Amino acid sequence: MQNITSNQNNRVKEWRKMQTKKGRIKAGKYVIEGWHIVDEAIRHDKSLDAVMVTDANYLDELNIDSTTTETYLITPEVAKHISATETPQGVFAVLKTDDYHESIPEKLGGSWLLLDNIQDPGNIGTMVRTADAAGMNGVIFGKGSADIYNPKVVRSMQGSQFHLRLYSGDLAEWLTAFSKHNVPIYGTELNPQAIPYSSAAPTKQFALIVGNEGNGVSSELLAKTDQNLYIPMKGEAESLNVAVATGIVIFHFVN
Amino acid sequence: MQNITSNQNNRVKEWRKMQTKKGRIKAGKYVIEGWHIVDEAIRHDKSLDAVMVTDANYLDELNIDSTTTETYLITPEVAKHISATETPQGVFAVLKTDDYHESIPEKLGGSWLLLDNIQDPGNIGTMVRTADAAGMNGVIFGKGSADIYNPKVVRSMQGSQFHLRLYSGDLAEWLTAFSKHNVPIYGTELNPQAIPYSSAAPTKQFALIVGNEGNGVSSELLAKTDQNLYIPMKGEAESLNVAVATGIVIFHFVN
Repeated sequence: MQNITSNQNNRVKEWRKMQTKKGRIKAGKYVIEGWHIVDEAIRHDKSLDAVMVTDANYLDELNIDSTTTETYLITPEVAKHISATETPQGVFAVLKTDDYHESIPEKLGGSWLLLDNIQDPGNIGTMVRTADAAGMNGVIFGKGSADIYNPKVVRSMQGSQFHLRLYSGDLAEWLTAFSKHNVPIYGTELNPQAIPYSSAAPTKQFALIVGNEGNGVSSELLAKTDQNLYIPMKGEAESLNVAVATGIVIFHFVN
Repeated sequence: MQNITSNQNNRVKEWRKMQTKKGRIKAGKYVIEGWHIVDEAIRHDKSLDAVMVTDANYLDELNIDSTTTETYLITPEVAKHISATETPQGVFAVLKTDDYHESIPEKLGGSWLLLDNIQDPGNIGTMVRTADAAGMNGVIFGKGSADIYNPKVVRSMQGSQFHLRLYSGDLAEWLTAFSKHNVPIYGTELNPQAIPYSSAAPTKQFALIVGNEGNGVSSELLAKTDQNLYIPMKGEAESLNVAVATGIVIFHFVN
């Protein structure tokens, strides 16, 4: 195990750069932090590129063998410097980003969530976690959506990225692929052509597109769906939170 | 209209204190901020104790008559000082806290959401907004839950506090009152005595208790319910976000 006490250390500089998309692309790696998610990565046999802890005992607790894994003992100051949170837990790991996927699989089936231009990383992470809880196959991050590796997305997914597959890509191309494989495509919108979500029959095969809170799903994508759904609202609220709305529709389908 | 340019001004000191629970209780007032929520307050005929803007033209846009409402022109620095956000919109109002209620109504009916020890203000605000969208009658903030007037709760409710009634109180006493009025009480938990939420029939009358993400609803309250519900999860996620879970159950009921 190597000791690092300075923010000027080259490794520390690399880790900190991984907080930005540019830095992650250049390194092909991203940082996860916190006990729960590092534990999850280990439980799912992810190969850890490096592990950084503020207390050497943490390695035992995590069951990490420092003869086979690159490990670093860092100071609380360094932890704060590389962390995306105000109060880091002192446990970090570096993972390769190649768990994430760009190209559309040859065979497509099951249930999928498509994110069109959703920017709030907390909402995105919550939606990935909801898709995971519902047993969905994957989530596709479309144009304008926050980066899959964004530290806030990663934190809010709480390890769900190890349970289902995450893609980033052109949603229009994905819709063509879903159609070819006879996976019914549902959009979400608020207009007279849409039907109440509860009128759609529960199904194990579907692609559901959700859009950003302000603008909804783009009209270009809505034109390519099999059916568009809305959530009837009885009160005075103008809209639901996008993650809540997504959960309501997904659990109606998989229930 | 009065001009205020200094953070040392007594009014400014009062407004800033309203960011804390103690300050709000002492003043009997709280601050709302942002165009949307100030607009909502006006639309719902709330009596505004004061309006603070960084640009005098904003008063016209808000349709506020400064001969009948106390108005202040503040500098961007003062706005930042009294704001709970990093980038204030420059529109604030002061409201009396007596829109909120402590005592249980004599007559009880309809649908209610009870928050047991939920701390995250963003989740709370999202749940209030969801209850509003579902046309529920009110939300009751139980012991351990964030304060109703917490600036982050207020921001995240997006004005829903003007559409339904918010209470703070002892949830056990509320449950006694619901029982007396024959309103069925549902708890949420993860244990063998609970039934899948989808087995419960949709209903217009219910009291639903939700608990915090870590500990769930307290066993004391769960013992007083008519039925406890859980959301079956097919994937590997350990839990759903509490606001998403609440939305799924509420919309199952009111649908």
